[in-house]
Amino acid sequence: MSYLFGVDYYPEHWPKERWATDAAMMREMGISIVRMAEFSWAKWEPREGEFHFEDLDEAIEVLAREGIDCILGTPSAAPPAWIIRQDPEIEPMDARGLRRHFGGRHHDCQSNPVYRAHIRRFVTAFAAHYAKNPHVVGFQVDNELGNSHADLCYCPSCTARFQQWLKEKYGGIDALNRCWGTAFWSQQYDDFSQIDAPRQTASGYNPSQMLDWKCFCSDLVCDFHKWQADILRAAAPDKFITHNLMGFTEKVSYYDLGKQLDFASHDQYPGGHFRPRLDVPIADTLASELDFIRSLKNKPFWIMEQQSGITGWDTLGRTPRPGQIALWATQCIAHGADTVCFFRWRSCTFGTEQYWHGILPHNGEPGRYYREIKDFMHQTAPVLAELQGAMPKNEAGILFSYRQEYAIDIQPHHPQLRYLDHMKTYYSSLYRRNIGADFLPEDADFSPYRVLIAPLQFLMTKALSDKLHAYVEAGGTLVLDMRAGIKDEHDLAFDEGPLPGMLADLVGARLTEYDCLREMDGLVHWDGKEYPCHLWSDIMDLTTGEAVAVYDKAV
Amino acid sequence: MSYLFGVDYYPEHWPKERWATDAAMMREMGISIVRMAEFSWAKWEPREGEFHFEDLDEAIEVLAREGIDCILGTPSAAPPAWIIRQDPEIEPMDARGLRRHFGGRHHDCQSNPVYRAHIRRFVTAFAAHYAKNPHVVGFQVDNELGNSHADLCYCPSCTARFQQWLKEKYGGIDALNRCWGTAFWSQQYDDFSQIDAPRQTASGYNPSQMLDWKCFCSDLVCDFHKWQADILRAAAPDKFITHNLMGFTEKVSYYDLGKQLDFASHDQYPGGHFRPRLDVPIADTLASELDFIRSLKNKPFWIMEQQSGITGWDTLGRTPRPGQIALWATQCIAHGADTVCFFRWRSCTFGTEQYWHGILPHNGEPGRYYREIKDFMHQTAPVLAELQGAMPKNEAGILFSYRQEYAIDIQPHHPQLRYLDHMKTYYSSLYRRNIGADFLPEDADFSPYRVLIAPLQFLMTKALSDKLHAYVEAGGTLVLDMRAGIKDEHDLAFDEGPLPGMLADLVGARLTEYDCLREMDGLVHWDGKEYPCHLWSDIMDLTTGEAVAVYDKAV
Amino acid sequence: MSYLFGVDYYPEHWPKERWATDAAMMREMGISIVRMAEFSWAKWEPREGEFHFEDLDEAIEVLAREGIDCILGTPSAAPPAWIIRQDPEIEPMDARGLRRHFGGRHHDCQSNPVYRAHIRRFVTAFAAHYAKNPHVVGFQVDNELGNSHADLCYCPSCTARFQQWLKEKYGGIDALNRCWGTAFWSQQYDDFSQIDAPRQTASGYNPSQMLDWKCFCSDLVCDFHKWQADILRAAAPDKFITHNLMGFTEKVSYYDLGKQLDFASHDQYPGGHFRPRLDVPIADTLASELDFIRSLKNKPFWIMEQQSGITGWDTLGRTPRPGQIALWATQCIAHGADTVCFFRWRSCTFGTEQYWHGILPHNGEPGRYYREIKDFMHQTAPVLAELQGAMPKNEAGILFSYRQEYAIDIQPHHPQLRYLDHMKTYYSSLYRRNIGADFLPEDADFSPYRVLIAPLQFLMTKALSDKLHAYVEAGGTLVLDMRAGIKDEHDLAFDEGPLPGMLADLVGARLTEYDCLREMDGLVHWDGKEYPCHLWSDIMDLTTGEAVAVYDKAV
Repeated sequence: MSYLFGVDYYPEHWPKERWATDAAMMREMGISIVRMAEFSWAKWEPREGEFHFEDLDEAIEVLAREGIDCILGTPSAAPPAWIIRQDPEIEPMDARGLRRHFGGRHHDCQSNPVYRAHIRRFVTAFAAHYAKNPHVVGFQVDNELGNSHADLCYCPSCTARFQQWLKEKYGGIDALNRCWGTAFWSQQYDDFSQIDAPRQTASGYNPSQMLDWKCFCSDLVCDFHKWQADILRAAAPDKFITHNLMGFTEKVSYYDLGKQLDFASHDQYPGGHFRPRLDVPIADTLASELDFIRSLKNKPFWIMEQQSGITGWDTLGRTPRPGQIALWATQCIAHGADTVCFFRWRSCTFGTEQYWHGILPHNGEPGRYYREIKDFMHQTAPVLAELQGAMPKNEAGILFSYRQEYAIDIQPHHPQLRYLDHMKTYYSSLYRRNIGADFLPEDADFSPYRVLIAPLQFLMTKALSDKLHAYVEAGGTLVLDMRAGIKDEHDLAFDEGPLPGMLADLVGARLTEYDCLREMDGLVHWDGKEYPCHLWSDIMDLTTGEAVAVYDKAV
Repeated sequence: MSYLFGVDYYPEHWPKERWATDAAMMREMGISIVRMAEFSWAKWEPREGEFHFEDLDEAIEVLAREGIDCILGTPSAAPPAWIIRQDPEIEPMDARGLRRHFGGRHHDCQSNPVYRAHIRRFVTAFAAHYAKNPHVVGFQVDNELGNSHADLCYCPSCTARFQQWLKEKYGGIDALNRCWGTAFWSQQYDDFSQIDAPRQTASGYNPSQMLDWKCFCSDLVCDFHKWQADILRAAAPDKFITHNLMGFTEKVSYYDLGKQLDFASHDQYPGGHFRPRLDVPIADTLASELDFIRSLKNKPFWIMEQQSGITGWDTLGRTPRPGQIALWATQCIAHGADTVCFFRWRSCTFGTEQYWHGILPHNGEPGRYYREIKDFMHQTAPVLAELQGAMPKNEAGILFSYRQEYAIDIQPHHPQLRYLDHMKTYYSSLYRRNIGADFLPEDADFSPYRVLIAPLQFLMTKALSDKLHAYVEAGGTLVLDMRAGIKDEHDLAFDEGPLPGMLADLVGARLTEYDCLREMDGLVHWDGKEYPCHLWSDIMDLTTGEAVAVYDKAV
Repeated sequence: MSYLFGVDYYPEHWPKERWATDAAMMREMGISIVRMAEFSWAKWEPREGEFHFEDLDEAIEVLAREGIDCILGTPSAAPPAWIIRQDPEIEPMDARGLRRHFGGRHHDCQSNPVYRAHIRRFVTAFAAHYAKNPHVVGFQVDNELGNSHADLCYCPSCTARFQQWLKEKYGGIDALNRCWGTAFWSQQYDDFSQIDAPRQTASGYNPSQMLDWKCFCSDLVCDFHKWQADILRAAAPDKFITHNLMGFTEKVSYYDLGKQLDFASHDQYPGGHFRPRLDVPIADTLASELDFIRSLKNKPFWIMEQQSGITGWDTLGRTPRPGQIALWATQCIAHGADTVCFFRWRSCTFGTEQYWHGILPHNGEPGRYYREIKDFMHQTAPVLAELQGAMPKNEAGILFSYRQEYAIDIQPHHPQLRYLDHMKTYYSSLYRRNIGADFLPEDADFSPYRVLIAPLQFLMTKALSDKLHAYVEAGGTLVLDMRAGIKDEHDLAFDEGPLPGMLADLVGARLTEYDCLREMDGLVHWDGKEYPCHLWSDIMDLTTGEAVAVYDKAV
């Protein structure tokens, strides 16, 4: 794949007579790939089993005439009205038991077997139809999986699937009772069928159940993707499959989802869209997301949606300054993007995203965004062609774990502590010193890194502890910080030994109790915020671990 | 009708022995009209079909003996418990699908056919009973229509009626799909029966659907009023019908509702009732509401409820300063009120509005409010008698449109932009220069006005554009501002031409794109607030339109 | 009972092999009583009617061997999963009609007859089993009654019971209509079966209904307690019954609940658990709660749960400084606690309260908390043994009334006025002058007190007025303040006479109306906050009541 630049295109939003003009303008800019089709189920299957891909075929053909290939998305993020009216149980349910309805997008339960049957029928036909089309080079399943589903879904289907997931994880109910600590507050279960999704309670939640729920939700999204990807791959084995990820969105583990992809893609909107003018991401935040997406598969990635103008729904983000769109796109390339697709070709005149501005404005006449992006493509093309496939060799690694994030966010201890914010303070420290970093899952190879930053290692396993010990013994510099080693993989506190548990020898101190004398001395100040010195965190600056520097940003 | 002063009276809240005393005290003050009956359905019809108007007859008679006439309200804002228990589907439903229950007021769905049958039975009997009573001179339907229903009603009955409304508007489903842009996010409908009220979604709304929903809600209120008014007029053709409106409340178009009234009325509570001490309306806000109510029918109006003391439910507004009640009432007269009724005669000792203070306190003994209001009536009577029927001749008009308000509030672009707040900055500018203004709907005759201020002309039609052109060609000064001409009547962005679209020639500039270079220069500062310069707004100060001054308050 | 120190212990959370170690360590510290069993229903009755008290028996025996007795709690605050799955109607319902589900605690409706049948079965067996056990000296019913139920329960069972409660209170529906003022907004009821719990309305609530609802909720909790206590007392007449109360929690009247107890107990967590670091109770707030608990039965009380370390669920409170735990416990003793039990023995490694730290940390090894608390016990034991049974003789009384609190909180008038906050300003004034105070219900004997502070006497009855008059006539100094005497016991405003109504002669002024001239002069400043001078409040500083000093803190 030698595509340099692309665009997200919705030919079904415009008259056919316009398509050739669009395609010619795209080619002229330097576009050789478009993503299409991911939100138009009702168009391709207006009635059950009645497929109409003629218009999409024609759009592909029009683009192909200008030398433009395409990626097609499956439309499962927006089931049509006729499906919802026929099977309203597909609508997702929140923790209070209330459904979310048709009229926006993501009005679907991803576990629902009735919905899956609809998807199977469509995707099977879709994949068969495009399997042999030489201009269709790849697929995207659904859209931004995890988006809009942050607080969903607690419906009976998801509950049943959660029970099944727990059964597979724990085998028997006794193991679950032990690992969830259901002896507390009389929460013992006799049978998996008694277990609920964590719906709204009168008071309090079981943290181990919450952790499993979050992991289940992630797994469900991965299963939903894999299940569609399997249909696609079976029918069209020579097409690639990628997905438009969204940085550090937490609903689904991108490590897991990434394993199913031929390569990762990322959607980037630095201008904000619902935020006040000044509350927009800055360079280091953007860079951290790009480095993370590159780290998922440890290889170059695509930008599937790169901001092409002002964005927003009912409220808008800020106007990109002259040159700023090119700046953002260039940063993506610098961090490992091999292909940059802009979202979207032309601002839609209708629907929720009327103000999510495209390269072309509503009236379709080229303007500033068009000129700037065209110039960017022309100037960058030779360099990008050269760079494709190149990878940085970083000496700093950051251990980023969804499980630690889930566990900390379930029990942040301090209302202002968020796992991601905290982790990013390390990233920013490196970034400001121009030190490149990779993000690493727990099962990564740590050995290539001179420094391994491991923030908030709340949940500790023997396997991870062994890896960290081996890393330090081999001469690596390990940065640990507060709350490490307190809990096991089930979010249960260890019931013996000094803190930080299995890591105690690494930090050069064996504590027989929390150092409360130090705790009361004050707060830890970290990057302009303060945290309370609960547990063993603040003893760290007293220690002289062989290979450990805590709270030392000068790595 | 030569009534100068009136009061809102609830004889059913007090012992009969007191009525003559009240009536005599009213007469002595200068009161010649009272409004009664609008909240006491259970009293007049304690069981289905069993009507008891004896007490109300007697109260009317007692008042008549003192020369006081009355207006009677229909009681549909508070259906009694026996109706709700018998037909609980009458209770309204919110966007999440939850009912609002009996125990307050406005616990009704205005479209529900079962509820309408109850109302028909009552109002028919009510109108027949009072049709020949010479002391009953007019009717009010329900109370403050639109109040408490801001986020209601999404019940099956309203959904069905919305479908019917859409069918009548669009004829066929294809037209609706086109005008709602349902090609976006796969929202095509095959049939009107698939369409929902815009209940809670997982993510995002269709702005065209939202606009239609808001217009439907307004039309439903108007229909609810007309349907009752028709019953009243058929039985009692010589009584007037008015309604106690509430300034710029947005649920229902007062232009439309006003067409059904013999004259408009307004409820005015400047002291606030749920607000912190200092967050209360000031003179220009009050004036704008009065000018708007006068503009509805372009003739004098009544104040149906004028604040007579501290107001509030569970929390209270501020205490009127000495003389302030008279000041407020005088301002009403100055802006076109011909009759001023005070709310209420005596503070109720029970119920939600125990602290909504009347002219008399709970104990019924005249105090400061009584003395101040009596003095006001005596002093003002000769002047008001002279003024009745007089109308200002204003040279400035403000184009106020519910459709523009709905569209801007659905998509404010900037979180702090509200249509009403923005419009009022123009009004205040005029007010501080002592320039009188009328509010005009789109179908008004603009020609009498030297200046026409047309803020936020977001939705533009050929008809309106033609009117604005003709106005300018005839020498009028037209003030346009940001976001004009971007969308059509269906809330769809125009897909061709320069901005501001049909108005481009009026502003002396044909833009081929958004002037993004200027956009990035900063924010528009307007009356102490700042707005982002999205779209074409900020190019205006560069233009030299023949008859256009933008952002120029010196009209 | 000569127990000095105790602890809350959950042997079922730990391996049996550990129990003897725990018991020995407890004895060594000075512990002679433990509370157990109140959250482990599923453990004692894993299947309906199948009771397993063997482990609990063994734990009691292990403790007894070290000379430690125990109190057992009934487990009704956490019905097990098998009950909820079998009878899901037990789950409580909020005002919107949504259930709260299993997964935390307090997921129960206290009126539900099905739930009561489950409790009856368990408690009967439980009481029978332990009636003769000499080491079980008392019972606690449920846990912190009122906790987590602040906004619950509006289910059909509670609604039916509310109707029954109203029937018993009012006899006939006419009396209810009169006392609720249902003539307002057409709220008349024909029958008690028409009356709802005050579920969510479209707009507004009836304050008299709200007051009855709050009183009903309090009575329901008391009934729930009494109903269990009766079962316990019948089976085990020689055991005491106490309850772990929570200071000024408002859901249930502790005056009423206290009548059922042999002695009161209190749970004290001064370090906070969900609060920012500095927003924690200070000495006078803690003292007020202790004085209140002592006042309930006018005799010494227990601390059933005394903070033993950092507390919290997902977020944590502040770390107790060295010595601070002892300081807090000592304050309890100084205000009348005869026995102090610490919560809990050892931090739980699982469940919601993993971070609610015990005397021992997760690893079970004695640390700072253990050492500090042990030292406290050893040093304090001789003094406390001496002090047990001693009572202060206070000359200042504060009239604290749940009904006044409910009424003020239903209609606070000013958004920032809260009954408790206001009352505590008086307490703090006394506290800072080292003047001891008792809290008194309306039916207390006022005569022993030189000063009686009666804040916010909003609801006034003839009986209370007579008592206050008699108190003043006998030479007592009565402190009244704003809003006194405005309403009757049904939350209806009095409809005659000057304010403050029955109290008017006490304050040396007969007002014929609200002193509005004074009202507008400003706000009342009271302890750093300001309140609006609505109603008659601010006239007080003009009066020269014989025995009344208003706004005078120098009592």
